[in-house]
This record gives sequence, C-alpha cells and structure tokens, in this order.
Amino acid sequence: MSYEIYASQWLNTAAPLSLASLRGRVVVVTAFQMFCPGCVINSLPQAKKLDTLFSRDDLRIIGLHSVFEHHEVMGPAALQAFAHEYRLNFPIAIDQACESGPLPRTMKEWGLGGTPSTIIFDRDGNLALKELGHLDDLRLGAFVGQLIAQQASRQDTNTGAAQAAVDQDGTQACGPTCTY
Amino acid sequence: MSYEIYASQWLNTAAPLSLASLRGRVVVVTAFQMFCPGCVINSLPQAKKLDTLFSRDDLRIIGLHSVFEHHEVMGPAALQAFAHEYRLNFPIAIDQACESGPLPRTMKEWGLGGTPSTIIFDRDGNLALKELGHLDDLRLGAFVGQLIAQQASRQDTNTGAAQAAVDQDGTQACGPTCTY
Amino acid sequence: MSYEIYASQWLNTAAPLSLASLRGRVVVVTAFQMFCPGCVINSLPQAKKLDTLFSRDDLRIIGLHSVFEHHEVMGPAALQAFAHEYRLNFPIAIDQACESGPLPRTMKEWGLGGTPSTIIFDRDGNLALKELGHLDDLRLGAFVGQLIAQQASRQDTNTGAAQAAVDQDGTQACGPTCTY
Amino acid sequence: MSYEIYASQWLNTAAPLSLASLRGRVVVVTAFQMFCPGCVINSLPQAKKLDTLFSRDDLRIIGLHSVFEHHEVMGPAALQAFAHEYRLNFPIAIDQACESGPLPRTMKEWGLGGTPSTIIFDRDGNLALKELGHLDDLRLGAFVGQLIAQQASRQDTNTGAAQAAVDQDGTQACGPTCTY
Repeated sequence: MSYEIYASQWLNTAAPLSLASLRGRVVVVTAFQMFCPGCVINSLPQAKKLDTLFSRDDLRIIGLHSVFEHHEVMGPAALQAFAHEYRLNFPIAIDQACESGPLPRTMKEWGLGGTPSTIIFDRDGNLALKELGHLDDLRLGAFVGQLIAQQASRQDTNTGAAQAAVDQDGTQACGPTCTY
Repeated sequence: MSYEIYASQWLNTAAPLSLASLRGRVVVVTAFQMFCPGCVINSLPQAKKLDTLFSRDDLRIIGLHSVFEHHEVMGPAALQAFAHEYRLNFPIAIDQACESGPLPRTMKEWGLGGTPSTIIFDRDGNLALKELGHLDDLRLGAFVGQLIAQQASRQDTNTGAAQAAVDQDGTQACGPTCTY
Repeated sequence: MSYEIYASQWLNTAAPLSLASLRGRVVVVTAFQMFCPGCVINSLPQAKKLDTLFSRDDLRIIGLHSVFEHHEVMGPAALQAFAHEYRLNFPIAIDQACESGPLPRTMKEWGLGGTPSTIIFDRDGNLALKELGHLDDLRLGAFVGQLIAQQASRQDTNTGAAQAAVDQDGTQACGPTCTY
Repeated sequence: MSYEIYASQWLNTAAPLSLASLRGRVVVVTAFQMFCPGCVINSLPQAKKLDTLFSRDDLRIIGLHSVFEHHEVMGPAALQAFAHEYRLNFPIAIDQACESGPLPRTMKEWGLGGTPSTIIFDRDGNLALKELGHLDDLRLGAFVGQLIAQQASRQDTNTGAAQAAVDQDGTQACGPTCTY
C-alpha cells in the first residue's frame, strides 16, 4: 500500500507537500479535528513540542485536518483562525472532502479510525506506526528517536515521477477510491 | 453598577436566563471563546466539574461566549458543534455583537479584559469575583463553597419588574452603551 | 464518638495541639506516611496549598503521621528530614504507636482505612468528612469553603476540662482502646 | 574520564552491576535521594516508565541513591522500604559514603550537581548526557531512542580486565579521590 496525503488546501507552507518529497526525513502526521477535545488538549500540543526537538531536515510534523463531522463549521477559514490561536506553525493539510460520504479521502485511504490519530513514516517513507488516540510522550519520543537514528536506505527516492503522481492525485476530486 | 447578560441567543436552555431570575443562587459565569486555548484546556473543564458539585438550586454555571476576534468563524452553528463535542451541558449565552466595535456588549458592560474570565455573583446577585485567566481549582472551590453557605438576604428579589427590564435589554440592539 | 489526636510527638508547633483547643476553626487533618506515594504526590501538596488559602484563625491544617508499616525507618528523625525537604510548615502529629499491633492509636480510634486519609472537622468540632484516598481539589475546596462560612454554634467549647482530658490522653501509653 | 559506579550495596539485583559489564546496552542512571521531592514526583516515575519501553538487552535503568544530606535517616533499610512502596524494580546502587565529606563517591567522581540527575551512557559506554533536574518525557524518549538505534561499535568491550578494575574499585573504601 502506498500512502499519500490528499489535500484540498495547505496552511503554513508555501507549496503543497507530499510524503514522497519528504523522503529522507522521518514524518509524523497528526490527524485531528479542531473540535476534537483529545486532539486539542493532548495531540496538538505534543506535535508542537515534537516539532522543536529535531531539525526539520530530520523530522517533519504535518497536521492533517480530517473532518468527518460538523463539516460546515470546520472549514478553511475556521481552521486558519484555530491554527493562529493555538500557535500551530507546522504545515497543515486539509483532508479532501469526498462526495461519497462524510469521511475525507486521506482518512479513508489510510484507514484511520478517528481523531486524534498519529501516523509515522520512516526516512524511506515506510509506514512505521498508525495509532488512534493519545500516545504517551516518553513512548512517542523513544519511537521517533529510533527512526531518526536510522539512515535512509535509498537516497534517490524523491524522484520526479513520484512527485508528479502525487501532484496529480492531490488535485483530483475524490474518485473511485472514495466509494467504499 | 448593575450586571446583566446581553445575549443574542442561548444554548442548552429552553428559555433565556437572566441574573435577576437566578437570585437566591450563586452564579458562576465563564466567559470564553471557542478558539481560546486557556478556555478550552482549563476553564471550560473546570466549569463542567464545578457544575456537578452542587445542586442547581444552589449553583448555576453560565457560559458566556464573548467573541472579540475571528467573529466570522465563531458563530452560533460553530458554537453548537463545539459545545456538543466538549459535552458542555450548562446554559451558554452568546454575547451580543456591537456595531461599534469587535467587543461584544456584555464583555464591554462588565469591563472584562479578555478570555477566559470568571465572574461570580453571590445569592443576592452582588458581584463577588471578576478575574481574568485561570483560577486554581482549590481556590475557586473554596470561594464558591463560602458563597454557597451564605443565605440570601432577600428572598423577594426575583421581581417581575426586574425580569421585564432584563428581557427588554436582552432583545435590544447595541445602543449608546456600546460607544465607549 | 469523640475525636482526639493521640500524638507521641509534634513537629512544627511550640506546644501540642488538640482538636478541642482548635474549636471555632475548621480543622483538616491529613493522615499520611512519608513513604506512601499517594500522600507524597497528591495529599501533602494539596494540604500545603489549602494552608495558604485561609487565615489560621479560620482553618488549621494538621498532618498526622500514622505509620502502620516500616515503623523502624519512619521514626521522628526521618519525619523531621522529610518535612524539611518537602517544606511542610503546618503542625504534624506523630500518631502514637500501640503495643497491640502495627496500627497507631489515632488511626485505630478514628477507624481510618489507610493513607492518605482526609478528616475534616467543622468549627464546632464535629466530624464533617472522613475519606480514604485523594480528594479532587475543586471538591475539597468547595467542602472546606462551606464549613469556613458557617459560624461556630458555641463559643465556649474550648473549656479547660476538655483540654485537660486531651492532655491526659495525649501522654498516655496505648491502653485498652488499642486491643481491638 | 572513566565512569564507574561506586556502590556500598545494591538493591534489586542478585549481583553488583558495573557500567563495564553493561557495555552493548544503553544505560540510564537516575541519581536520587528518597527525600528529594523532584526525584520522587518526577524522575523516579519517569525511570519506571522508561524501564518498560525497551528490552533490558537494549536498555538498563539504574537507580543511584546518592545521599548528601540527612544521611542518618536515608540508610539501606529506609531505602529498601521506600523502593518497596514506590514499586521500584530496577537495580539501585547505594552510592559509597566518603569519610572526607557529605558527598558520596560516585556523585563526586561524576561531578553531579545534586538530585535528581540523569546520566546516560551509549552502547559503547561513552557518556551521552549528564543533566541536573527533570527532563521532559518527550525529549528524554527521543534522546534514548536515538541511542538505542545505534549499534555498539565494539563488541568486545566487556573485557575481563575492565571488569576486574571495576570490582576492585567497587569494594574500595573512599580514598584519595574523595579529598577534593
């Protein structure tokens, strides 16, 4: 299975990001909703703190706003205000809405069970952890630290072809993959 | 100075409330904004817990949604979703917007410095505490406990006249009182 | 049932205290052991904070070191060092050892189930609360606040006779009351 | 500089340990005193949690009871009771007392500034971190995780000679090294 982020819009980044373009770094994706108490009280503060521990050449934090309820009041403008007030400085992807149902596309493709979820990829882009709920700080730190210390096995993964595929996907409307 | 709540709308109550109608009870008003981190992480959970400690004949908690920024994304529908997700069961007043500026009317009339603010009235309706920021649980409990133990000095304060005045104010648009 | 403190020794007070001599004040007794994690992490810090909220004319905090295990390493000198390091400034009674078993006398007389326990007396010296385990700050504050607001019904309770009885008990070795 | 543990006694281990004998593993030493609030409230619970995250083939936690005050009430029997009540299961070294002053030997040799201190050695036995005070969970986890992921550079470091030197030191009384 290949993981990619399907974003309708990005915050806090000049250009859209893709997991492929971040190969060589450990990537921690925090899937959240702005009205999800566990996200607001635990996971987002944790993501902010994690973002300060390592160089962004080694670790990238990405917020994934995966709205699956109350869509009408958690739109981009609301998210922008929320991110401003909570001082979220890392890039945030707005998960693509699907016409086929309330679950957004990345959330469905990745099989996320709800928010908050933490999804971690190693330097080679392989899925290393996908977990629903809050992670203990010490455990998360230890897990990420181990991945950071591992060298990427391939240095040429960020190919133009991979990037092109992602860009294409990133602008597609939800297609057949959204029918389940 | 007389304190009253100027609400454009109420949540979690069949009919609008007024401080006058609650005479005889201790009233704790938690002024908040749904995108205010200190409100969400500290004050609203504290208000929920306080609401469970006493009979509602003795203590009433009122949320006051005093929006003074990001008005466009903190409207009634957003607040309704927020209150649902955070399991806020106590009555919440939406502070009346003022044409004269970003500060809502109750916030201005009461001289609140920001959110979160806690405003407490004794059983006679007298202001007992008005404080910006988070209050320590032990201190807040001790303060409220003392007020609870005091009997109301007047049993006839909930007069029809007082109620009428409040109802009238409650439906007024922001007038001259909003010009300062 | 009459409550009194049976102490073999006191810390942080020039003279032994008795509940009778404290009539007119609310008294919170925190029963602890210096090697009890729940006492050290929760109850003693809470007692310290509570001690700062009110005048000592209204509220007195008393620590009760009720050792029922590891007696040989929780003696007076160890307690003195412990109290110094944890900055415990309120009076602490060392619960009288009993020859009849490991439970100290006050703990047995009061029917305490373990440590930490919180025992609260109103201004008249009546038992108001006796609870094993940690109390939530907000709830404890509210409980104590209510008692503080109540006036003592009798102003003459601190009689010489009552005091004499206590002093006598306070120096007795464990007698028949320790046989159960 | 060479680091070794000078212990007068060990708890929770069948035989004395030495850093040399643990080569190949990451070793986290938590220096504490049983009456040190920061140790009891923060560092020891953290050490317990860290001990559960990795195999003991990869990570070893060692408590170091470095008593530099109140010596008379923090002896081995008291420590044993303390460790039992706090459910400390990892090996604990009692730092050797020095005749030349209140500071124990390991604490002096290692230049520790007080308690709690955290001292971390990599798989090769090199000092990786030495810090006074409490470490944030996320940061500590990340630091240890990185060390865990690194392979030991030498597989033969646990030589008989090194071990012998340690054993000899470990049983010496405080000598000239304690005079500064």
